[in-house]
Amino acid sequence: MRKHGSGPSDRSGIEPFHAMTFLAEANRLKAEGADVLSLAVGQPASPAPLPAREAATTMIGRGAVGYTDAMGRPALRSALAAHYRQAYGVTIDPARVMITSGASGGFNIAFLAAFEAGDRIAIAAPGYPAYRNIMRALGIAPVEIEVGPSDDYILTSDRLEAYFRREPFQGVLIASPANPTGTMTPPDEIRRIADFCRTNGVWLISDEIYHRLSFGQEERSALQDLEEAIVVNSFSKYYCMTGWRIGWMILPPSLTDAAERLGQNLYISASDLSQTAALAALSAGDELDAVRESYRRNRLTMRERLPEIGFRTIAPIDGAFYAYAQIPEGFPSATVFAKTLLKQSHVAVTPGTDFDLRRGDGFVRLSYAGAEADVARALDRIADFVSKA
Amino acid sequence: MRKHGSGPSDRSGIEPFHAMTFLAEANRLKAEGADVLSLAVGQPASPAPLPAREAATTMIGRGAVGYTDAMGRPALRSALAAHYRQAYGVTIDPARVMITSGASGGFNIAFLAAFEAGDRIAIAAPGYPAYRNIMRALGIAPVEIEVGPSDDYILTSDRLEAYFRREPFQGVLIASPANPTGTMTPPDEIRRIADFCRTNGVWLISDEIYHRLSFGQEERSALQDLEEAIVVNSFSKYYCMTGWRIGWMILPPSLTDAAERLGQNLYISASDLSQTAALAALSAGDELDAVRESYRRNRLTMRERLPEIGFRTIAPIDGAFYAYAQIPEGFPSATVFAKTLLKQSHVAVTPGTDFDLRRGDGFVRLSYAGAEADVARALDRIADFVSKA
Repeated sequence: MRKHGSGPSDRSGIEPFHAMTFLAEANRLKAEGADVLSLAVGQPASPAPLPAREAATTMIGRGAVGYTDAMGRPALRSALAAHYRQAYGVTIDPARVMITSGASGGFNIAFLAAFEAGDRIAIAAPGYPAYRNIMRALGIAPVEIEVGPSDDYILTSDRLEAYFRREPFQGVLIASPANPTGTMTPPDEIRRIADFCRTNGVWLISDEIYHRLSFGQEERSALQDLEEAIVVNSFSKYYCMTGWRIGWMILPPSLTDAAERLGQNLYISASDLSQTAALAALSAGDELDAVRESYRRNRLTMRERLPEIGFRTIAPIDGAFYAYAQIPEGFPSATVFAKTLLKQSHVAVTPGTDFDLRRGDGFVRLSYAGAEADVARALDRIADFVSKA
Repeated sequence: MRKHGSGPSDRSGIEPFHAMTFLAEANRLKAEGADVLSLAVGQPASPAPLPAREAATTMIGRGAVGYTDAMGRPALRSALAAHYRQAYGVTIDPARVMITSGASGGFNIAFLAAFEAGDRIAIAAPGYPAYRNIMRALGIAPVEIEVGPSDDYILTSDRLEAYFRREPFQGVLIASPANPTGTMTPPDEIRRIADFCRTNGVWLISDEIYHRLSFGQEERSALQDLEEAIVVNSFSKYYCMTGWRIGWMILPPSLTDAAERLGQNLYISASDLSQTAALAALSAGDELDAVRESYRRNRLTMRERLPEIGFRTIAPIDGAFYAYAQIPEGFPSATVFAKTLLKQSHVAVTPGTDFDLRRGDGFVRLSYAGAEADVARALDRIADFVSKA
């Protein structure tokens, strides 16, 4: 029998989130006085929009910051339901909207509400590492399907069909725009994936956290094709509210009761203050669209300069605020590249090992959510670093 | 095979948190204009202390609210470590302090870090229902040990020994002061429980969320007797910060890496704003002690009036801010008592069904964390309600 009272469980033996380790090292260097530029973390440089900050300040002044319903403040749930009608033309009962502690809280609840221990969920590799790691901690087996340049780095219904025929899975998780590749799944392909899930009795989880951060292509919500889709979203990215830890889910009617029970017991409720700020953020479109325009310019800078610097196999930089690229020739691994770059040139990037266990150590993710001047300076330093290597 | 894509998992089939349902109904009545008095939820009527509110407001003004290290802001971790030396005389390396999204986040991480699916954890009944429900969602079996008037409503090492000899368990979870009973475990008994856990290789989880809310008896941290204890705490109760969702854990050295990996992946980090406010709250002792004095007076009111009203088998009201009592004669169940009381007299209390599945429907929990005038008025209404029943 395993010895208890003296060491961690097997199920906690998941990978660390390496980007956080690089963030911690970058913070340490900064604390020592170094001028560190970070392209490592998917975090907007801009603060939460002004109406959100004003609403929070007013609430703090009044004093009453308490538990809310486990599903969240009714006004925020209704406002989000209205957003789906306006943005996607779908009608969502506010009873299907659940406010969560970031998208993270949403994934935890979604995985527990819809899946048993032993179930399997198909995901793309490269992909956001927490998908795989939360699943493993909760007893779910990720089925990692490798995508790459030949399929524009997206999961297709054809690939899903082929895997499913070999060994069935109980869920599919898609993300468009995707992290770390920034790629978008075309609307037709989302429709085909939804059809595949409906036909085969497979749950579809759609991570739409990077919606409103695309640059021309159509954003399609999985809800437009499948009412039973589980949609996870957050105020962290477009709304610039990472540190507020506030997100939401749109649940299928069949899962709302289960999600509410889980929310009541596992979390009680999301932060009341952040819920109040988030409601105000929904009306800050102009301010937030201006922030997106700065990403659009950063994106063009990335597109132009990465190949010049020597990065190869660059994923299409369609949306979100990431570029994912093979490191320039002459470096033994992305981990060495990232460590040396941080140490010598004080620029933090994330090695691909987080996102793709097998092939990731040849790639890095560069976030362009920072200020334009900082992104440009960081690329100058990287160019200088590579040219001298 | 279970049909997927159309309904909830078996593991989400936990009990709802009934107190939240009563809160929602009370909120509905309030929204209709009723003068509802709530003794239903364990939530201080006082706001977060002034230094906490000022620190949050300042941070919002500066704008930079971002992800923190998964373990939390270093300054807050160090300040909490220092608190353990001052309050309990134990030396805690700040590396063992993890900042969490409320005590809830702590329990999720502790259960996953230290226990496998299939493990068993002993808890007292009556007890905080989320213990049992989080465990079940995460595949852990709660071993509920009934306590009552004969053992002062506390879990003893003798009872644990007896259960363990019949069928071993891998963890023990204690809470002192306890929810819902308000009872405290004597220091000697905590020492014996720690010895039992050390001897038998059983994890000890100590919920110390109601520390600093006792009225004369000694508060002993499990860390004083067992370095490998997992201590869960929060800023929600003594620090009056429920809606900020901020808590902490003291981890055994052997679990810090596992907890950090889980935190990085399952939560990323706790709210940055709440962490900043929490650090400031640590220096608001005078303001918070004054709030505790109001609980002390409410407690005396409860002790005096509950027997007069006709409540029976009242648990010792040692600490926290709860009274747990058998309902007056003449009512068929606590659920009927609570529903009728809310409907007719607009006072919300929580039936014991949350806390004790077998015996709870004869008991109610009354929180006295509200304003003194409100608690007195609520007891007047209950007296009137009972006398006319």
